Amino acid sequence: MQFNPDDTIVALATAHGNAAIAVIRVSGPKAIEVVENYFHTKSLKKKKLSNKTSHTAHFGIIIHDDIIIDEVLVTIFKAPHSYTGQESVEISCHGSVFIQQQLMQLFLGAGARMAEPGEFTMRAFLNAKLDLSQAEAVADLIASNSAISHQVAMQQMRGGFSGKIKLLRDNLISFASLIELELDFSEEDVEFANRTDLKNLISTIIVVIQKLINSFEVGNVIKTGIPVAIVGKPNAGKSTLLNILLEEDRAIVSEIPGTTRDTIEDEITIDGVLFRFIDTAGLRITADVIEQIGVNRAFEVIKKSAIIIYLFDAHEISSGDLKLEIEMLKGYISDSQLVIVANKIDVEDLQDLKKEFSDYPEVIYISAKEHKHIEKLKQKLVNLFDIRTIDSTDTIVTNARHANSLKNAERALIKVHDGLNNNIAGDLLAIDIRYTLEELGLITGEVTTDNLLESIFTKFCIGK
Amino acid sequence: MQFNPDDTIVALATAHGNAAIAVIRVSGPKAIEVVENYFHTKSLKKKKLSNKTSHTAHFGIIIHDDIIIDEVLVTIFKAPHSYTGQESVEISCHGSVFIQQQLMQLFLGAGARMAEPGEFTMRAFLNAKLDLSQAEAVADLIASNSAISHQVAMQQMRGGFSGKIKLLRDNLISFASLIELELDFSEEDVEFANRTDLKNLISTIIVVIQKLINSFEVGNVIKTGIPVAIVGKPNAGKSTLLNILLEEDRAIVSEIPGTTRDTIEDEITIDGVLFRFIDTAGLRITADVIEQIGVNRAFEVIKKSAIIIYLFDAHEISSGDLKLEIEMLKGYISDSQLVIVANKIDVEDLQDLKKEFSDYPEVIYISAKEHKHIEKLKQKLVNLFDIRTIDSTDTIVTNARHANSLKNAERALIKVHDGLNNNIAGDLLAIDIRYTLEELGLITGEVTTDNLLESIFTKFCIGK
Repeated sequence: MQFNPDDTIVALATAHGNAAIAVIRVSGPKAIEVVENYFHTKSLKKKKLSNKTSHTAHFGIIIHDDIIIDEVLVTIFKAPHSYTGQESVEISCHGSVFIQQQLMQLFLGAGARMAEPGEFTMRAFLNAKLDLSQAEAVADLIASNSAISHQVAMQQMRGGFSGKIKLLRDNLISFASLIELELDFSEEDVEFANRTDLKNLISTIIVVIQKLINSFEVGNVIKTGIPVAIVGKPNAGKSTLLNILLEEDRAIVSEIPGTTRDTIEDEITIDGVLFRFIDTAGLRITADVIEQIGVNRAFEVIKKSAIIIYLFDAHEISSGDLKLEIEMLKGYISDSQLVIVANKIDVEDLQDLKKEFSDYPEVIYISAKEHKHIEKLKQKLVNLFDIRTIDSTDTIVTNARHANSLKNAERALIKVHDGLNNNIAGDLLAIDIRYTLEELGLITGEVTTDNLLESIFTKFCIGK
Repeated sequence: MQFNPDDTIVALATAHGNAAIAVIRVSGPKAIEVVENYFHTKSLKKKKLSNKTSHTAHFGIIIHDDIIIDEVLVTIFKAPHSYTGQESVEISCHGSVFIQQQLMQLFLGAGARMAEPGEFTMRAFLNAKLDLSQAEAVADLIASNSAISHQVAMQQMRGGFSGKIKLLRDNLISFASLIELELDFSEEDVEFANRTDLKNLISTIIVVIQKLINSFEVGNVIKTGIPVAIVGKPNAGKSTLLNILLEEDRAIVSEIPGTTRDTIEDEITIDGVLFRFIDTAGLRITADVIEQIGVNRAFEVIKKSAIIIYLFDAHEISSGDLKLEIEMLKGYISDSQLVIVANKIDVEDLQDLKKEFSDYPEVIYISAKEHKHIEKLKQKLVNLFDIRTIDSTDTIVTNARHANSLKNAERALIKVHDGLNNNIAGDLLAIDIRYTLEELGLITGEVTTDNLLESIFTKFCIGK
């Protein structure tokens, strides 16, 4: 890791591969110079870039050793009005991998170095363009693959979460400084900080922090998708159903040409909500197996799933243990987590089936093979876990690091709260308040360490 | 195909997949309006783009239905100062596939339509920003994967080839018009066009055109790579050698992080020259097999190869038929196409081996497994087909369509030339001159048909 912000860094900012265009980003004190050295007008005359206004685009030709590398569009960003806050240049070139390599090599030879992952955003943080939780949201935003994960990341990037933390911290700081003041006058046994006010403040902050901690459960699901397991007897049509769901999702995505998604096997987005299907290959949830729960994979699957789809073959209602299996499942998960689905409803008399299952009015009748009533099932899934109803102004914690700091802060504040109840001395209160301030500061980056920065930014892609 | 240039078109211009940033291109009469509708300042106020100067970049936020889709950088290009010659906008957004889709959908909903492949470049052609051969070079440039294919495409894109064709055509046109004039006065039997001058001109043009046609052989190889076959006995180490060559090439390419090449199996670039290895799996060039040449695959491989590497195991020199096989090969290909390589030179006495092969001083001694003298072999390959010595000002035809038109023009001009020798009438000369002008015009696009344009531009990628 080399994170010296005085270096001029360069990276490919667009996705790999041949395309119409590619964009190379340069940032640092020598950013403009590094490009300007090779920049020429259409008629091959040297062209100055350093005297151009910020946010202007210039068409020209990059020449090295009399060889024309490319016709490019160069956009200039003058410090501090750039993403990083430094002098920056974006070179939009023809999207040939060969040309991208040639240009990168050229700029590297001219004194720039390869950017580390996330180094552009790290500079934006160091130059106070973003705080730390906003910077982390940039990576989340790029990785977002559903309407909800996108909205949560966007809100965090725009400072929604930081603002909330900052408010808590500012309130604590004013009290903390009064308590620190008491310590200076400790021999005189004065109390500058009103203990009742402080207790009220601490209680309020604890409530807010607990709400944030609780939101992480939802936040984590938003980010990684709602885990769903499809279980049932071997011939129930589990993989057919999964394939139909995946297929429909891909069809929707590929309606916009040129944006084919790098589909991760077994993830689908329904109404902007991401569902992630747990691999249940080879798993049989039978009455027998459930009996041995806790020692077999069935328990693992149930523990990991937010939703379990119990699928059965409508032709097999006579095999009496269907209801038994359903009841077994209900013993381990809540009703709202279970979706019962009858598949292959091309049976002669659907009415008989419905009568047989009249105790289970929630059963959804589909035919995966014939794409029948799939929409109904999808609506059921979305309704079960309707994160769309989450108030968009609610702050949702999606980052495990933030959740962890919040938990640490909560623990410390509870100690402060208890301490106040027991009239504990100011210097002991001060320790826990300082600790809380530090944990909250770690979230937004008011407190940082090199290790923390490194562990955050190395998870970014190169070029961001 | 819908190529109405009055439509406003939109496409993703950068490669697919998640990345730091992605760029969406919009071009057409409503390009600015389509984006402006959703564009806001950082503080969420509507921001005008239509009143901004060309070539300026604007940071802002795209909002639709109160949902923030992304913070973006929008660059404005005013007609005619854009790639297409039309009003154009480039939106640089966070490189999430989800965001790309949302933005595309937004602009499509606002009255733009998806661009057809190559449609941006086609508009550049229709607006006389590029001629047809230059437009074709844009696609070649993006596909270029070696220094030479890159340089040839670049020269063509910058108008080198077009200039040459235009010169020939202009010269012909002045004569053609004199001959057409004669036809108007045909009853008076005058000759405005000096026949000797015309004959000289036609001869000169034929020479130039023939040189261009001949360059296509090299040009085609430059574009698609020099075909190389590695042949030899089954245990000679053919696949080890191929793997070593491929591995080294990939290592060089991946020195620049972020630009990993989408390597096509069995292609390597040595000193900027692309070599393409022909699949010889299961092929045995033995004395026996060569005997049956013409009916078996060996003949196919030899016909397709510009270079044949004959590889043998240095331990097996005693198996007397090595030299026989080499001599057989020499019967079918020229010495300059054959590279004889002794592999596994960890033999005790290399001198014995060299003595045994003293009749073949050109043999290269390597150890593929131990990476020994691989560099020597690579240099040999490059020297054998040294297209680097091609004068960079030489025009090289790389496009089969161009080669075809040149051949048609050549045939017609030879008829003109013969006709002049036989004092044929002006009206007959005029037919072939007109035909020549049309064929040359097809290259640069002075003559076009809808079918021609469609067949050219549909080969482009979307977004270019």
